Amino acid sequence: MNEKISTDILIIGGGPAGMVTASTAKSYYPNKEVILVRKNKEAMVPCAIPYIFGDKLGDSSKNIVPAAKVTESGAKMHFDEIVDVDFKAKTATAASGAVYEYDKLVFATGSEPNIPCSIGGSQSCGVHAVPKDRDGIDALKKAVEDKQKAVIIGTGFIGIEVAVELKEHGKEVVVIGEQDRVLQNALDAEFSAEAEEILAVKGIKLIKNAKLKEILCNTDKTTGVLLENGEKIDTDFVILGIGYHPQTELAQKLGLRVGKKKGIWVDEYMRTEEKDVFAVGDCASKQHFITRKTTGVMLASTSTAEARICAASLYKIEYIKGFSGTIAIFSTMIGDRAFASVGITEEEALAENMDIVTGTFEGMDKHPASLAGCQKQKVKLIATRRGATIIGGQISGGISAGEMINVIGLIIENKMSAYSLLHLQVATHPLLTAAPTAYPIIKAAEAIDKKIYSCQN
Amino acid sequence: MNEKISTDILIIGGGPAGMVTASTAKSYYPNKEVILVRKNKEAMVPCAIPYIFGDKLGDSSKNIVPAAKVTESGAKMHFDEIVDVDFKAKTATAASGAVYEYDKLVFATGSEPNIPCSIGGSQSCGVHAVPKDRDGIDALKKAVEDKQKAVIIGTGFIGIEVAVELKEHGKEVVVIGEQDRVLQNALDAEFSAEAEEILAVKGIKLIKNAKLKEILCNTDKTTGVLLENGEKIDTDFVILGIGYHPQTELAQKLGLRVGKKKGIWVDEYMRTEEKDVFAVGDCASKQHFITRKTTGVMLASTSTAEARICAASLYKIEYIKGFSGTIAIFSTMIGDRAFASVGITEEEALAENMDIVTGTFEGMDKHPASLAGCQKQKVKLIATRRGATIIGGQISGGISAGEMINVIGLIIENKMSAYSLLHLQVATHPLLTAAPTAYPIIKAAEAIDKKIYSCQN
Repeated sequence: MNEKISTDILIIGGGPAGMVTASTAKSYYPNKEVILVRKNKEAMVPCAIPYIFGDKLGDSSKNIVPAAKVTESGAKMHFDEIVDVDFKAKTATAASGAVYEYDKLVFATGSEPNIPCSIGGSQSCGVHAVPKDRDGIDALKKAVEDKQKAVIIGTGFIGIEVAVELKEHGKEVVVIGEQDRVLQNALDAEFSAEAEEILAVKGIKLIKNAKLKEILCNTDKTTGVLLENGEKIDTDFVILGIGYHPQTELAQKLGLRVGKKKGIWVDEYMRTEEKDVFAVGDCASKQHFITRKTTGVMLASTSTAEARICAASLYKIEYIKGFSGTIAIFSTMIGDRAFASVGITEEEALAENMDIVTGTFEGMDKHPASLAGCQKQKVKLIATRRGATIIGGQISGGISAGEMINVIGLIIENKMSAYSLLHLQVATHPLLTAAPTAYPIIKAAEAIDKKIYSCQN
Repeated sequence: MNEKISTDILIIGGGPAGMVTASTAKSYYPNKEVILVRKNKEAMVPCAIPYIFGDKLGDSSKNIVPAAKVTESGAKMHFDEIVDVDFKAKTATAASGAVYEYDKLVFATGSEPNIPCSIGGSQSCGVHAVPKDRDGIDALKKAVEDKQKAVIIGTGFIGIEVAVELKEHGKEVVVIGEQDRVLQNALDAEFSAEAEEILAVKGIKLIKNAKLKEILCNTDKTTGVLLENGEKIDTDFVILGIGYHPQTELAQKLGLRVGKKKGIWVDEYMRTEEKDVFAVGDCASKQHFITRKTTGVMLASTSTAEARICAASLYKIEYIKGFSGTIAIFSTMIGDRAFASVGITEEEALAENMDIVTGTFEGMDKHPASLAGCQKQKVKLIATRRGATIIGGQISGGISAGEMINVIGLIIENKMSAYSLLHLQVATHPLLTAAPTAYPIIKAAEAIDKKIYSCQN
């Protein structure tokens, strides 16, 4: 007979979403038992995976999220895999044969890398996705360690971050993307151009608007890639950075409704259509805050926000959610330059047929500019023409851009207008920020105001 | 006969407040003539003055705000001094004898350093305030250049910043303050303690709770300072960093009403009680956003916010101000550590008899912590017990603290509650920010929530 384990709250999956759900649930409901079941003993910081390939981390052992973050809250962690659930009986069966009896069930099964079946060639031939488990990453790192020529497929964040790390680690790197430019989903053309210039200076070759036709192999060794236009690029290995999809095989098998992008459908409190069953993180369907469409944006920070809401709402709705949908807020670093984006880009807004006005300001991230370490800082805001509500923002700059994008994120979540930013009170300091006379968010808002106002006259 | 100069808008004073008023007025009212009158040909970045004493700037020539910021907007700049105004005739007389006819008048006369008359000794004896004009700073720098022992009076931002610069430049430095700890107006005890530790490691001697009795002189040479407790400290020069007061001599002579701290009284659109006369920046009275009291906080960033509102409101109220009063938002750097504060401190809130709850979280400013350059990051939030409205925040951390305090500033200006921060969406990136699972503003809000919630059960 199989082991029976009884718990109040059962969480399937132990990435950031699952872990934060577990510890937060313990905080809201200290008397409830919480068990998190996941396959892997060790979980990695997902966003830091690219840095294992270069010298910034260099080793997967430096990228472990301590399980103590969960267990110290009083939640338990089991290393197993849930393979079946009976929603009526409220039981979940694990691969080990253990049967969990639960009151509340949370899917936090995450996502897995896209691997197009249409590409000729195979994994064994030296084509690798970027997995999120430690064994997978270690295997990949080992497989490419003594190879020199790399092709990265995909010009999103992960593709670019891995490309830069491999290049800085001494490899020859070619990045191939289908889009018009790098980071196209997050950045408008002028910001992508800046990023591409850094890649060029680093000696990374970039091929855009290119479709991959075939991976060329010689027995089990990659020799190159063939593009649809006939171009052939020699390489020793290929890394795919073409996105991730929700891991919802079990959920779909159980009949849970999924959204357009195959994420599990949830309401704003992360409840699925099945009573007492929730879903959070990459496996849950996401709506865009601005476009109201289902979006494929997956971010650890969004996942943890969902996890906190889910945990608070497991037994009672503890507080009213003040927003609905992902604002798609993220940042990255290319060389010593930070790029960040939130909301909707100008390109996407125009494609959505939105009547918008943009404002851009370029200044310095310290003041006066004669200070050492001063970097250019460019901020773009996108607003609706009517009301001038801020719906998007992009930054390139130094390290401080990483937190400045969170100022714009809050502006968007609060549906603030460009007008309300004109009298924004900000802290400015020579060694830390732009000058008060030229704080870029205010200046970009002024540019929007001026455009709207001069139209009205 | 004296020269008559006719203009629509006349601005008295050319620091950040005057300059931003001038250029913004030209933007709102391009057909109006704007003249800014100020004494000095060159204006300095006020917050960067301490860095002239050390190696970060090293020379006042590197700290000039370009006059082009005003003149390129189409506003004119005259180098003169307004010595009298006739509000009825709408004329202003300059020291040169020129008479300006204006339609709208803006006082932006700034502030000047406090020099207590009660202290024995004199300027000529080697006691220096920190002036904001270039000639004054150059003279001060020259006067102390070949002297070794420095005493700084005052433990506010300017005192501490100048102390660190002088110490790093090789001088022996003693800082003497009347308060219990450094930066007491902005930081609570645990943050001050951290700052004091850095000063100690740097070898700066700190004497707290100490009142200065007398400056000891030998003919025209400073030899030391005598404290009220009888302690004597040898020194070659003394720098006063004990605050600034509004420069409102002319305004008071003209009968303009001033507030408790001697700033010119203004409403929320920066209008004085005299028709068509405005005041902005350090010379204008300020109300605290939280305590509603008149406050002596003077910040260039607040000044420029006021300047933008004033400029927009000169002829018509162009937009409704969404806040009232200064949120006292500022930041500084001590060594490689940033300190920042906004709103009200816990100490001040308790002194105001406010029923508050605080939440603190300490983490890292990058993730995982194994990344190079990772620094500790501590965030404290102060909230009302009822409603958990955020009314204050403090940060110590790396460079990114400079923009993170602006996230908290926006939270305070928008009167957001700790509950609304629990599902805050933030951008996180290994090289730029804390982990999404441990973003400090969210975690500090959780701590507040938990304290309030556990009281209710």
